[in-house]
Amino acid sequence: MAKAKTKTKSKAKTKAIAPMFGRVAFIGIGLIGASMALAMRRAGLVGTVVACARKPKTRQTALDLGIANEVTKDYAKAVVGADLVVIATPVGTNGAIAKAIAAHLKPGAIVTDVGSVKQAVVDAVAPHLPKNVHFVPGHPIAGTEHSGPEAGFAELFDNRWTILTPLPRTSAKATAKVADMWRKMGANVANMQPEHHDMVLAITSHLPHLIAYTIVGTASDLSGDLKQEVIKYSASGFRDFTRIAASDPTMWRDIFLNNREAVLEILQRFTEDLTAMQRIIRKGDGPALEDTFTRGRAIRRGIIEAKQA
Amino acid sequence: MAKAKTKTKSKAKTKAIAPMFGRVAFIGIGLIGASMALAMRRAGLVGTVVACARKPKTRQTALDLGIANEVTKDYAKAVVGADLVVIATPVGTNGAIAKAIAAHLKPGAIVTDVGSVKQAVVDAVAPHLPKNVHFVPGHPIAGTEHSGPEAGFAELFDNRWTILTPLPRTSAKATAKVADMWRKMGANVANMQPEHHDMVLAITSHLPHLIAYTIVGTASDLSGDLKQEVIKYSASGFRDFTRIAASDPTMWRDIFLNNREAVLEILQRFTEDLTAMQRIIRKGDGPALEDTFTRGRAIRRGIIEAKQA
Repeated sequence: MAKAKTKTKSKAKTKAIAPMFGRVAFIGIGLIGASMALAMRRAGLVGTVVACARKPKTRQTALDLGIANEVTKDYAKAVVGADLVVIATPVGTNGAIAKAIAAHLKPGAIVTDVGSVKQAVVDAVAPHLPKNVHFVPGHPIAGTEHSGPEAGFAELFDNRWTILTPLPRTSAKATAKVADMWRKMGANVANMQPEHHDMVLAITSHLPHLIAYTIVGTASDLSGDLKQEVIKYSASGFRDFTRIAASDPTMWRDIFLNNREAVLEILQRFTEDLTAMQRIIRKGDGPALEDTFTRGRAIRRGIIEAKQA
Repeated sequence: MAKAKTKTKSKAKTKAIAPMFGRVAFIGIGLIGASMALAMRRAGLVGTVVACARKPKTRQTALDLGIANEVTKDYAKAVVGADLVVIATPVGTNGAIAKAIAAHLKPGAIVTDVGSVKQAVVDAVAPHLPKNVHFVPGHPIAGTEHSGPEAGFAELFDNRWTILTPLPRTSAKATAKVADMWRKMGANVANMQPEHHDMVLAITSHLPHLIAYTIVGTASDLSGDLKQEVIKYSASGFRDFTRIAASDPTMWRDIFLNNREAVLEILQRFTEDLTAMQRIIRKGDGPALEDTFTRGRAIRRGIIEAKQA
C-alpha cells in the first residue's frame, strides 16, 4: 500500500516536470532565438528544439553549441509537430514565413514572434495563420550589439520586459501560457496594444538607434586623419553610440521600414528640440543649458529606480 | 665594507622612490581630480595631496576616503608650496582660478588642468600665470556618468588617452614630466594643438552628449503615462543615452559655452545627415538604410581594434 502510494506520487512528479512545450521550432536562430532556446532549457520548458536557418554555418553553430536538437533550412519542415513556433527573423520576412508555415502547423499550436515592431507583424502574419492555431505576438526588450546564435545566452531576458500584443481573437489561455513561459525564462511581462507598443519603442529604441547610426555615419564621412582620431579618442561618449550602431543592419532596416510613422513622428519632435539646443548654444545661454542637462539626471534616476539601468 | 656598500645601495633606492611631486594641489576634487589623486598614489608619484573644494561635504569626503591629506576652500592657500597644481573644475571657472592662484604659485611649479575644452582654457588661464611656472594644459579622455570624489577610482585612466596641448612657450621638460606622470598613472599620452583637440572632442564627446541630453529631454516632455513607459522599457537603447545624459550638468554647460564653434559646426553636419535619414525612411528606401547601418559596424570594429571599446 505504502509502495503503491509512492508510485502514484512518483508518477505525479514526472507529470509535473514534463516540459511546457514538447517541441519548439525557432524560425531564425540569431541572438534572440538562441537566447530564448537557452533560457527555455534553463527553465526546463522545452523537450526538443528545432532551429530553422538559411545559412549552413548558422545551423551548424546552433547544433554545436547545444542550442538546437535538430536543424533544417525548410520553414515548413521545421514547424511540423511543434507545440510552439517562434518567428525570430528580421520583421520584413515574417509575412512570407507565416505563409510558408501556415499549412504545416499543428492544430492548437501557439505561434509567437520577437519582432521590435508589432502592428506591421500582426498585419503581415495574422491573415496567413489558420484558425486552429493561436497567434501571440511578442517582443522581448533585451539584446546586445552582437548577432548570431553564438551571441546567445540564457540570462539575456532576466529582469527585462517582454511585451505581448495579443489580437482580440487570440485565446486568453494561449496568451497566459506565453506570458508564463517568459516569466519562467526570467522576464517580466506586460500586455499592450500593437500600435502603442510601436510608439513606445519608437522613442526608447528606434530613435536612439537611428541617431546612433547617423552620428557614426557623420563620423565616418570625416577625412582620413580626423576619422582615425575619432576612433582613437572614442572613449568620451562616441563609443557608446558605436556600440548601439553595431547592431544587425538587416534587422534594423526592417524595423525602420515597418515602423515609419511612429519613428518619423518622434524624430520630428527630437529635431525640433535639437534645433532649440543649437539656438541655445549659439546664444551662449548658460542657464538654459544647465536646465536641460539637469533634467537628464532625473530621467536617469527613474531608470535606476525601475531597475532597468 | 660590504656593509657600507649596502648602505649606499639603500640610499640610492630611497632616492629613486622619492615621489615625482612632493606636493600636489587639486583645485576641484570631483570624479577626475579624485581619480587622479588615487592613480598618482597608486604609482607612488605624490607625497602630499591638497584638495581645494567649495563644499564642506566634498572636502570631508576627500579626507575620509584618503584621497587628500589636507583640504581647504581657499584657492591661494591650496597652491602654496605645491610642485604641481591640477585645475579640475568646470572649465568656465578656470580663468578666475588662475587669477586667484597666480601670486601664490611656487616658482618652477607646473600647472595643468583636465578640461574637456582646450583653446578656451588656454586663453583664460595662460595670461594670468607668472613666467616662472610651467603651464601644461591636459585632458584625460576618461570618465563615468558619476560625479564627486566618492566616484573616483585609481583605474579610471588605465589604457585611456590623455591629450596634452602645450603652448609654444611651455618648456619641453615640463611637458615631458606631465606626460611621464600620466603614463605612470596608466594612460597613453598624445600631444595636440588646442584647436584641433576641440574639433576632435566636439565629434567624439560634445556632440554625443548634446544628442543624449536632447533625446532624454524629448522623452521627458512626453505625457505622464508615456514617460513612465519610456523609463520602464528603456533597456532597448534609450538607457544608454540616459547614462550619458546623467553626467555633471555644470561641467557640460561650461563645455558647450566654451567650444561653441566646433560644436555648432559638427552639429550642422549631423543635422544634415539626420535630415537625409528622415527622407530615406519616409521614402522607405531599404538598401540606403542597410548601407548606412552596415557602415556603423565598420567604425565599431575600428574602435575594438584600437582597444578603446
